[in-house]
Amino acid sequence: MSYRAPVQDYEFLFDNVVGFDRVAGTARFDEASPDMVSAILTEAGKMCEEVMAPLQRNGDLHPAHLENGVLRTSPGFADGWRAIAEGGWIGMSANPEYGGMGLPMTLTTSVNEMMSAACLSLQLAPLMSQGQIEALDHHASDAIKDLYLPKLISGEWAGTMNLTEPQAGSDVGALSSKAEPNRDGTYAVTGQKIFISWGDNDFAENVCHLVLARLPDGVPGTKGISLFLVPKRLPDDNGNAGVANSLKVVSLEHKMGLHGSPTCVMQYDGATGWLVGEEHGGMAAMFTMMNNARLGVGGQGIGAAEGAYQHALAYALERKQGRTPSGTIIDHADVRRMLTTMKADLFAARAIMLACAVAIDMQTATGDEEWAARAALLTPIAKAFGTDVGIEIAETGVQVHGGMGFIEETGAAQYYRDVRVTAIYEGTNGIQAMDLVARKMMDGGEAAARLLDEIEAHAEGARGAFPEMAEAVWQATESLREATEWLVSQSDMNDRFAGAVPYLRAFARVLGGHFHLAAAMADQGGAREKLARCYITRMLPEHLGLLVQAQAGAADLYALDTDELSA
Amino acid sequence: MSYRAPVQDYEFLFDNVVGFDRVAGTARFDEASPDMVSAILTEAGKMCEEVMAPLQRNGDLHPAHLENGVLRTSPGFADGWRAIAEGGWIGMSANPEYGGMGLPMTLTTSVNEMMSAACLSLQLAPLMSQGQIEALDHHASDAIKDLYLPKLISGEWAGTMNLTEPQAGSDVGALSSKAEPNRDGTYAVTGQKIFISWGDNDFAENVCHLVLARLPDGVPGTKGISLFLVPKRLPDDNGNAGVANSLKVVSLEHKMGLHGSPTCVMQYDGATGWLVGEEHGGMAAMFTMMNNARLGVGGQGIGAAEGAYQHALAYALERKQGRTPSGTIIDHADVRRMLTTMKADLFAARAIMLACAVAIDMQTATGDEEWAARAALLTPIAKAFGTDVGIEIAETGVQVHGGMGFIEETGAAQYYRDVRVTAIYEGTNGIQAMDLVARKMMDGGEAAARLLDEIEAHAEGARGAFPEMAEAVWQATESLREATEWLVSQSDMNDRFAGAVPYLRAFARVLGGHFHLAAAMADQGGAREKLARCYITRMLPEHLGLLVQAQAGAADLYALDTDELSA
Repeated sequence: MSYRAPVQDYEFLFDNVVGFDRVAGTARFDEASPDMVSAILTEAGKMCEEVMAPLQRNGDLHPAHLENGVLRTSPGFADGWRAIAEGGWIGMSANPEYGGMGLPMTLTTSVNEMMSAACLSLQLAPLMSQGQIEALDHHASDAIKDLYLPKLISGEWAGTMNLTEPQAGSDVGALSSKAEPNRDGTYAVTGQKIFISWGDNDFAENVCHLVLARLPDGVPGTKGISLFLVPKRLPDDNGNAGVANSLKVVSLEHKMGLHGSPTCVMQYDGATGWLVGEEHGGMAAMFTMMNNARLGVGGQGIGAAEGAYQHALAYALERKQGRTPSGTIIDHADVRRMLTTMKADLFAARAIMLACAVAIDMQTATGDEEWAARAALLTPIAKAFGTDVGIEIAETGVQVHGGMGFIEETGAAQYYRDVRVTAIYEGTNGIQAMDLVARKMMDGGEAAARLLDEIEAHAEGARGAFPEMAEAVWQATESLREATEWLVSQSDMNDRFAGAVPYLRAFARVLGGHFHLAAAMADQGGAREKLARCYITRMLPEHLGLLVQAQAGAADLYALDTDELSA
Repeated sequence: MSYRAPVQDYEFLFDNVVGFDRVAGTARFDEASPDMVSAILTEAGKMCEEVMAPLQRNGDLHPAHLENGVLRTSPGFADGWRAIAEGGWIGMSANPEYGGMGLPMTLTTSVNEMMSAACLSLQLAPLMSQGQIEALDHHASDAIKDLYLPKLISGEWAGTMNLTEPQAGSDVGALSSKAEPNRDGTYAVTGQKIFISWGDNDFAENVCHLVLARLPDGVPGTKGISLFLVPKRLPDDNGNAGVANSLKVVSLEHKMGLHGSPTCVMQYDGATGWLVGEEHGGMAAMFTMMNNARLGVGGQGIGAAEGAYQHALAYALERKQGRTPSGTIIDHADVRRMLTTMKADLFAARAIMLACAVAIDMQTATGDEEWAARAALLTPIAKAFGTDVGIEIAETGVQVHGGMGFIEETGAAQYYRDVRVTAIYEGTNGIQAMDLVARKMMDGGEAAARLLDEIEAHAEGARGAFPEMAEAVWQATESLREATEWLVSQSDMNDRFAGAVPYLRAFARVLGGHFHLAAAMADQGGAREKLARCYITRMLPEHLGLLVQAQAGAADLYALDTDELSA
């Protein structure tokens, strides 16, 4: 299962599609010159190809497991973690004050995607650390930052997020874990958490858990939740990992895929923890971590898609079947359709992800409200579309393999099984869509309208070169604008929610059309133009049906009562 | 993992949607009265619920395996096979002269779908026998029929189909297995076959293989292929299973799912076989078997969809999360959307499958060419749409479960893994779509036009009751007609093939709209009307984007050369 890092694709996107020059033009990120970007992507790509990709099958064939209560990771994963840590890839965007590189999220997001393509189950470990690093940097006390951040950034220690409980999944506010103040300013944290990705490992000296729990005076619901840092081993006086804390991994889940990543049930029995952020302000701190992670999970979907695409293409180029010019299946029109669709969607999803990352960087660098709103708007789209595309491309990848796709040895099936979870964790894609049509439209659709204005202006500018493609993108944008206006005018939120998933996908389809058009403008007569033509002709029209659904309202969904659904 | 057979849904479809009364009105099938249909569906449903459904997890957790070269099936599968055999469910449509019940394929198809929902991996075994029974009945000598058919129909013996070889998958004509005439009129068959579903078992006294191989004077390609019956044990003078033949199971595949069904590599070393049909006429005989099997595999997808739907609905009704009227997730608009979409697609796919079965029965009963053409037209649609819907519904079923969907114990993941192969075997769904736009349009689109005429006439008749729904179905049918005319006018077959998959899906979408409208007409103000409204409002519009793709031609797909696809 070889993997080739798509460094050129990134560079093209940075330079021609998502406007990375604006990021590099800020004082905050002025070190991110094209040369530096190129060097970083190349170096990270090499590590992904040489160190991580060979581990992908190991994770599947030799899952992480508990041995007498001790977690054992898949063969080679410890070396993989070390390579990631030593390359500085965990703390790429972290605060330089604590050893981070302070690089733009756009670069980190790109490297994360490459790592996901190479070995998704291992990549989830540094992704969790990155979220924790950002949450601590924004919300923790200086003492905690001084002690924990250097070790998390260097990879000596690892981080996790502990939100979910059996009765509290999407509804985090229903959690029942408790924290009691100790006399020394620490807290005793008690409760059970489930679905804790990389809840333990055997390669970092310490595993630091960010745990949501309720203080004795915390009100029910999300407003009574606080965030605690609860390390596996308590730091000693020198700040090294010392005695064991009162917490343990109770069991690991048996999952459909991602077997290399241990998904833990964690038990906290009066474990010592430190408050992060304000009392009862846990959700705000957690959102810092989750927004980062949401974009990262979108990148996981795209990475898996890249891996699955390369895998399927290699098979199509070598599989002899039927009388075709090359003798291989690549010459069949339907195989072409599958591969071209995969490649075009991959490009669209990647451009959306990077545009979101650029907005985050611009927000960081400028503090500008409009950039913040753009980042907030694009995050659920990047997460949901990136992961949906990941699943679809892995699915098509299986199909390109024919019968061999169903056989595990081929590797196509693993992408399909592994990537499936990305549409679920860090907020299901349904939750992302609800976030888009509710919270992200609380501005009356202003941020969306600004983006659509930009897309239409760009399409206007492209009419000379590509009249048909420009018109198609412009028209689709207008339809999306109408649907957006319809959505924000609905007073019953269920009418928005009923159309949220198709609306999000239509939004992504239009963004994809926009970015493909930009790519075509930058590569007139070249491969990018050809790919754009496939996308705009074949895939953009999907928005027609989606926007009908988006504006269908909720009434007919509730017309069927539960007995009728069961009949 | 409990399963409730949807007997009422079948009865409703028989009586109101697919016109089963026409089948029952023929002399050939005049025994199939509503009472008899009801009794059979009820009895079969009970067997599926009580005997087969409890085996579903066994197959996944305890896969079929080789033990010192002997195949061991999953726990309970032998009892399951006996229950299927003793109930007469293998030979439901088989020739009564040999112990079959001679019932319509519409009934067999329904029972097969229920068995698939209950335990997909076991159901594949009788499905293979059914194909063999039909092929032998049509093409074998009387001596072979007299000896084999009673035992296959009773389930004492089981049947398989052996087409694929490592270098000959979709391109069957590339096979290299050989058959040499023996002096006694038998043949010595030699070669290796792969992907042989249920290539062996430990519950039938004999396993009879239908093997495609080339006689010494067979020309290259499909025209030089003959069909041979090669039993695992040679019949003795009394027609009982006697000494072992020269064939064996070399190994089993490690698959993504369907673990209860052994997928075998078979080795034939001069094994004794009997010619079935004409010399070099193997493909014709094989197609008898495959057409049957294609509809059956469509039913597998639909069965898996029913299982996954019931599973997801049960979860949604019990999973408490968020503040909703019922306290469970069923009240969330997006969960409603998912479940309603699943149910509406399930109904559409099932109606298409049954309409295809009705056409087969009418062809059998009347010999009418138009019914034959209708059956031929609907078979690839029933296969591809049924299995695509199976995969999509299983996929949505995972999503309804949230995090639990990724955990194997929940069972949602098994449907997702198991059903995936149905889009691949018996001709990939790409092959089905190519069959639809090529072979099935060799009449210049006449059979399709006749069907579209009927749909429009029906929509006209529904305008009084449901003006909007009728108009939507009518308009979609017109668009499909235009696309059909465009397709048949393309002289370069690649221009048809490039749009084949989206065209097939659009065809299915329109058929689904038609059948939902018929259901609404029969249940005005009732649940069927409500479901039809969801389908026609939300899902039928998907055809808009699909038909654009269907008519996009092949040029842009081939514009990207393989280097550009790899870049």
